[in-house]
Amino acid sequence: MFNAQKLIEIALDEDAAWGDVTTESCVPEEKTISGEFLAKENTVVCGLFLLQMVFEEVRRRIGVSSPVSVRLHAKDGDEIREGTVLASVYGSARAILTGERVALNLLQQLSGVAAGTRAAVKLISGTAAKICDTRKTVPGMRVLQKYAVRVGGGVNHRMGLSDGVLIKDNHIAAAGGIANAVESARERVSHTMRIEVEVTGLEGVREALAAGADIILLDNMDNDEMTEAVRMVNGRAVTEASGNMLGKDLRAVASTGVDLISIGGLTHSVRSADISLKFGAAPKAI
Amino acid sequence: MFNAQKLIEIALDEDAAWGDVTTESCVPEEKTISGEFLAKENTVVCGLFLLQMVFEEVRRRIGVSSPVSVRLHAKDGDEIREGTVLASVYGSARAILTGERVALNLLQQLSGVAAGTRAAVKLISGTAAKICDTRKTVPGMRVLQKYAVRVGGGVNHRMGLSDGVLIKDNHIAAAGGIANAVESARERVSHTMRIEVEVTGLEGVREALAAGADIILLDNMDNDEMTEAVRMVNGRAVTEASGNMLGKDLRAVASTGVDLISIGGLTHSVRSADISLKFGAAPKAI
Amino acid sequence: MFNAQKLIEIALDEDAAWGDVTTESCVPEEKTISGEFLAKENTVVCGLFLLQMVFEEVRRRIGVSSPVSVRLHAKDGDEIREGTVLASVYGSARAILTGERVALNLLQQLSGVAAGTRAAVKLISGTAAKICDTRKTVPGMRVLQKYAVRVGGGVNHRMGLSDGVLIKDNHIAAAGGIANAVESARERVSHTMRIEVEVTGLEGVREALAAGADIILLDNMDNDEMTEAVRMVNGRAVTEASGNMLGKDLRAVASTGVDLISIGGLTHSVRSADISLKFGAAPKAI
Amino acid sequence: MFNAQKLIEIALDEDAAWGDVTTESCVPEEKTISGEFLAKENTVVCGLFLLQMVFEEVRRRIGVSSPVSVRLHAKDGDEIREGTVLASVYGSARAILTGERVALNLLQQLSGVAAGTRAAVKLISGTAAKICDTRKTVPGMRVLQKYAVRVGGGVNHRMGLSDGVLIKDNHIAAAGGIANAVESARERVSHTMRIEVEVTGLEGVREALAAGADIILLDNMDNDEMTEAVRMVNGRAVTEASGNMLGKDLRAVASTGVDLISIGGLTHSVRSADISLKFGAAPKAI
Amino acid sequence: MFNAQKLIEIALDEDAAWGDVTTESCVPEEKTISGEFLAKENTVVCGLFLLQMVFEEVRRRIGVSSPVSVRLHAKDGDEIREGTVLASVYGSARAILTGERVALNLLQQLSGVAAGTRAAVKLISGTAAKICDTRKTVPGMRVLQKYAVRVGGGVNHRMGLSDGVLIKDNHIAAAGGIANAVESARERVSHTMRIEVEVTGLEGVREALAAGADIILLDNMDNDEMTEAVRMVNGRAVTEASGNMLGKDLRAVASTGVDLISIGGLTHSVRSADISLKFGAAPKAI
Amino acid sequence: MFNAQKLIEIALDEDAAWGDVTTESCVPEEKTISGEFLAKENTVVCGLFLLQMVFEEVRRRIGVSSPVSVRLHAKDGDEIREGTVLASVYGSARAILTGERVALNLLQQLSGVAAGTRAAVKLISGTAAKICDTRKTVPGMRVLQKYAVRVGGGVNHRMGLSDGVLIKDNHIAAAGGIANAVESARERVSHTMRIEVEVTGLEGVREALAAGADIILLDNMDNDEMTEAVRMVNGRAVTEASGNMLGKDLRAVASTGVDLISIGGLTHSVRSADISLKFGAAPKAI
Repeated sequence: MFNAQKLIEIALDEDAAWGDVTTESCVPEEKTISGEFLAKENTVVCGLFLLQMVFEEVRRRIGVSSPVSVRLHAKDGDEIREGTVLASVYGSARAILTGERVALNLLQQLSGVAAGTRAAVKLISGTAAKICDTRKTVPGMRVLQKYAVRVGGGVNHRMGLSDGVLIKDNHIAAAGGIANAVESARERVSHTMRIEVEVTGLEGVREALAAGADIILLDNMDNDEMTEAVRMVNGRAVTEASGNMLGKDLRAVASTGVDLISIGGLTHSVRSADISLKFGAAPKAI
Repeated sequence: MFNAQKLIEIALDEDAAWGDVTTESCVPEEKTISGEFLAKENTVVCGLFLLQMVFEEVRRRIGVSSPVSVRLHAKDGDEIREGTVLASVYGSARAILTGERVALNLLQQLSGVAAGTRAAVKLISGTAAKICDTRKTVPGMRVLQKYAVRVGGGVNHRMGLSDGVLIKDNHIAAAGGIANAVESARERVSHTMRIEVEVTGLEGVREALAAGADIILLDNMDNDEMTEAVRMVNGRAVTEASGNMLGKDLRAVASTGVDLISIGGLTHSVRSADISLKFGAAPKAI
Repeated sequence: MFNAQKLIEIALDEDAAWGDVTTESCVPEEKTISGEFLAKENTVVCGLFLLQMVFEEVRRRIGVSSPVSVRLHAKDGDEIREGTVLASVYGSARAILTGERVALNLLQQLSGVAAGTRAAVKLISGTAAKICDTRKTVPGMRVLQKYAVRVGGGVNHRMGLSDGVLIKDNHIAAAGGIANAVESARERVSHTMRIEVEVTGLEGVREALAAGADIILLDNMDNDEMTEAVRMVNGRAVTEASGNMLGKDLRAVASTGVDLISIGGLTHSVRSADISLKFGAAPKAI
Repeated sequence: MFNAQKLIEIALDEDAAWGDVTTESCVPEEKTISGEFLAKENTVVCGLFLLQMVFEEVRRRIGVSSPVSVRLHAKDGDEIREGTVLASVYGSARAILTGERVALNLLQQLSGVAAGTRAAVKLISGTAAKICDTRKTVPGMRVLQKYAVRVGGGVNHRMGLSDGVLIKDNHIAAAGGIANAVESARERVSHTMRIEVEVTGLEGVREALAAGADIILLDNMDNDEMTEAVRMVNGRAVTEASGNMLGKDLRAVASTGVDLISIGGLTHSVRSADISLKFGAAPKAI
Repeated sequence: MFNAQKLIEIALDEDAAWGDVTTESCVPEEKTISGEFLAKENTVVCGLFLLQMVFEEVRRRIGVSSPVSVRLHAKDGDEIREGTVLASVYGSARAILTGERVALNLLQQLSGVAAGTRAAVKLISGTAAKICDTRKTVPGMRVLQKYAVRVGGGVNHRMGLSDGVLIKDNHIAAAGGIANAVESARERVSHTMRIEVEVTGLEGVREALAAGADIILLDNMDNDEMTEAVRMVNGRAVTEASGNMLGKDLRAVASTGVDLISIGGLTHSVRSADISLKFGAAPKAI
Repeated sequence: MFNAQKLIEIALDEDAAWGDVTTESCVPEEKTISGEFLAKENTVVCGLFLLQMVFEEVRRRIGVSSPVSVRLHAKDGDEIREGTVLASVYGSARAILTGERVALNLLQQLSGVAAGTRAAVKLISGTAAKICDTRKTVPGMRVLQKYAVRVGGGVNHRMGLSDGVLIKDNHIAAAGGIANAVESARERVSHTMRIEVEVTGLEGVREALAAGADIILLDNMDNDEMTEAVRMVNGRAVTEASGNMLGKDLRAVASTGVDLISIGGLTHSVRSADISLKFGAAPKAI
């Protein structure tokens, strides 16, 4: 989990480029406050470690000397019931009020991804298949969204174009066939990478297998075709079902025997979790 | 619409930190390609101007000398039918294949925001109210998401904590009442800013009016209360309805007479528009 | 007061890109030193909070482990007599000598702005008018200079082109008249912003009022005209006098009844305050 | 003259973080405009090369496709009479109106430095002395202000702490005397650097000479003492007069025979030159 | 090959932070010049595409309007004889002289890596083994050095810790054995990654095979042991020889049957290729 | 020694952009570990101060709360025998394993430069000459490599093109002779800089002396010519021998009487020192 700091700085730059003018006007510099991050619906919490980082960065920017303490009452991946307190915060009122929205935006977005993933994972529980993410992420959020997918119980596909090979129709056409494409990729990339080929039918599966593909992506194939594809592959490659999966019966897809079901919607169409920060009547150290 | 360049660079850094290894292996440097951005569902398109910027930046990074041309067939805000071609692209195959996902992620996300906003706007058409966004945005996407809300027909609330005043309960408590809080803010901020106060009941409306608030945010009040609030305000302040609006009957809310209905879900829970890039059999200059 | 850190880093990059070669040669790594920031003329101090930040950043860059302590003996906005000690500093000699000039450059520049503003504020004391800044600031110093104007007793105009509307002749011409321009702006910008129109005569005042402008900037009008303008406006809009104000009799301008007098010279032509850092014979912990 | 681009980006970030809302509302995207940069007082112009860079960067950010042309009618260093047109600009109205203030802020500030330097240079014309700058610059403006000093006819001292040696009292005390300090510096720094020592009296001059200093800074010494110092030095070192020089009779200082007179006020207390951008009735291509 | 631009900017920042003072003094702004990049020893050229990028960036910084043209006479990977002209350059003398050293430093360093790799590749030609790089690279040069290894005929290991799994003794100890470590990694990382385990003897090979390792790194094992390891593995995993390979007989190592020989020295101890830029008597357009 | 932080961040970005997937899988978050940096050959150690900075930055990125302690057992510049422990490290296993390679890459590279310089210095010990570096450095490493040269006993030439003058044949040709070039440079640059001229024969030495050059670079001259050049110069300028010095008998070159011998190979062709991090069986606090 690396360099979340950078995204926090971008988020604060866009939310409070030259400070929080309301808080600066109304709240004395030395005032302290305490509050609780409260789940307002059932969810899977994700991103708790960011809270301290957000308030710390706000404090550094404002130049407030008194610290902000965050105490966590849950951990990433926990299934949370509505009404649960996820974390408490105590310290400089200015720092907490200024950082509140950025902290919540991160926590709600990531918990939304984790909860959505967990729901998909449960739909196929008991099968051998796994739920997998894609590169269809919100710009700037790639690493964190993929972390949230793992927290939700899914597995990650490649991070991006640099660290994984996925040969699609244009690559195949340009290389002159699947065999050529696989061979070209094998020569170019590290031996630490597996080669994946996207196919749209059984003929493609056959060619990909013959070409020695390590992973075969079955794109927009129906369940019968996928069942047949899995039979053909017979363990010689990893199989991955893909193509508008959110609209499909995931359990039926899993029953085809595919190893992975990759779902863009996990990260491109996120329902933010409903979490708020409730302030106590009197500040209470934690 | 400023400095989208920065977000594009972040998106390319996270998607292709050291290039597109598949494309580099399979696609010759000099190959050209052409394709069409295709709406696969009805939507409101937004972000078309980013396409050229993405491919241009990819081209600069890869060091490809042949240009990538983008021709737009729609403009931001257009209501699009499934099957419509939004834009054509022609040029270096390497640049186009490497930039495809970043271009689509931006276009789909922003069109999703615009379409969601447009839907809300239509629900209250004919009333005097307007649909308004909030600060509940995806970290890093603030400026672009707020642009998409305008494109969708909504209006923007403040960009962030620096350029607008919104006095909430904590500010009121710290300042010693609404009147004090409004006065403190008025002294601190530019005369170009209006002062907004958040209240949760009619007593608050009364106090906010007495304190000379320019805008009154009616937080989680029911429609009857809001109708009464609007009557009390009687044009002396702008009124804004807020609080889990996505779950409510927006037309009924608008009928209370409020000026604005602000909806966090427009930007925190976005359903990405279904748009893809289809490649032609033979590259076709545009 | 946000992200002064960034400007401090720029200032240290330009002053000591690869260290302080004199200090590295002559001063042992473990040596400590103490000194006092001394006002060498009457001024209004501003920027004291930056001192600790500068020395902290230098210390981090040099990798010195012993801390630098700063103790403040005044607070921003205090009117200071020549000879007053503003702050004491104690700690690593290398860090203090390396950071001295950047610390002073910031403190002297901001105190200069604050003192100039205070002088203007005093010239109109007793009137209802306020002294206001502009966007005529030194590149890179916008946020800090505007802070110094507030510390000096002035008020801020908009921070920049994004967070405020000021309709000038070119906008009026392009929009087809003041009424159109005001209406276009009103539709585009947040309801949290007031609309300001710049006029050069009484006819303009009349049109701006009719168009519903919230603020009217009276550009380069003489005092008699401004008196008449204020009479016409009669409280329906904020009035702002502008145009080479430093060369004018500010008290006479204020007597026209305008609400604000905006002065570019507060920030574009700053006389730096005379402040120096005097070192003690023997280092003295603070 | 390097990387002015960086400062321009900072200036635009602080002036128009998310665009120019007034111009976006009122001025159609395709509108063109023309204008002239006009000197409204006598000055020495400096920074003309920045105009094109500012408008180019604005254009890139806005995404306007039509170019902005700048034609220069003067060159940096020219002595300009009030009323002179310095440059013409023609192109996208949005780009020009959005970039106008940043362009002017840079041009006015640098012309102010150049004009102030030129005035000082003229005061000592005919003597052998030269006017020299210091490290007392406005944070962020170091390289450009020092360029403006050269344009004004002055000479530059070191850019900062990394590229020059100036041994002051604290260094001398820490090193155990001038001889030790000079020797330590000589060992540490490149043979391409000269060693300068600051002294406050004739005894210091003697020691500095004995230590082999290449340059001797005469700090706050009166003219008689400086005359004697120059006599003692007798060409064996460069001599530099320093210490609140703006308040002194520069010609008298120069007559002591010193080689250089260094003046912090050239850059820390700048009177911005009065330059404005006047727009033509009808846009006129250039 | 991505974002070399960033390294070029760092290199120019450190070489010419505020310009080239010699060239600015002596060479008129409008002067043109032409030159040839000349190999002064036999080498394998690498990095030619950077030449245009360097001069372009210099030109942008200096603000020179006349372009710099680069014409390449070789391509990356060519085996070059002493005396060969690799590229010609023509254009602004200021831009070329200012960028010369950065251009050469890049070209010489990368050609040095490519030539060293090619030499190692030739030593094992005819065997089935390949030469492979490591993470022992010069800080800041990772992506470019790994490109140069490919250009030299070697293959890349993982780019860094994020895109590949290499389980070493500490991981094994912490996880409680090789089997546990492999299983933990398999669960955490993408299915696109292969799992590599480092072992130091035949017992480790056995365990790694049993644990299902995809790649086995044979660390500091002698050739007899490696021969036996390859026999045991029998194609069920990729084998990689590692450990101070530069001091060994690479052909003998390759003869053990290992698939890969990874050599840190390819990138951590580079002999820069001898290449210079020779200027012509009279500038000659290209 | 300034802003090594920036290079450390670049190195971690390229080595662990989204973390260390192996360590995250296998090593529990709370585990501690201890290890020793061990010299595996004789060397001159350089860069020890970077170790703490690397682990601190990793810790901050990972968000590990337990600290990493580094204890140094040597200091930069020490001549180290094979088998010597240079430093101990203790703390979070995740932070130490993730930062290990970046820490070693820096330490090995800089120690390599220092050791190479020390070897050259010893070859000429007893003579009056000094070993000097050049601008032929690895991109991104300029400041640190030049620090390592000093640590090795060498002296630094100018940092780059901005802080020193070196007039070469192209400058001379453009300026119209050595005298003109020296005069132009003298007028343009600070009085704190010395002027250096590169010559290739005795006629050049004569002209450079006549022009008042402070330093004369003798480029690719043989030892007899250099002896004669030194005789001609007779102390009126610093003399510097240059040109493929690594292939020459340095002691013989030094015996010509030159003041400096500058060697590009010190920094462009570095043999990395062999240093490793050995982990203890049981973690041992330090």
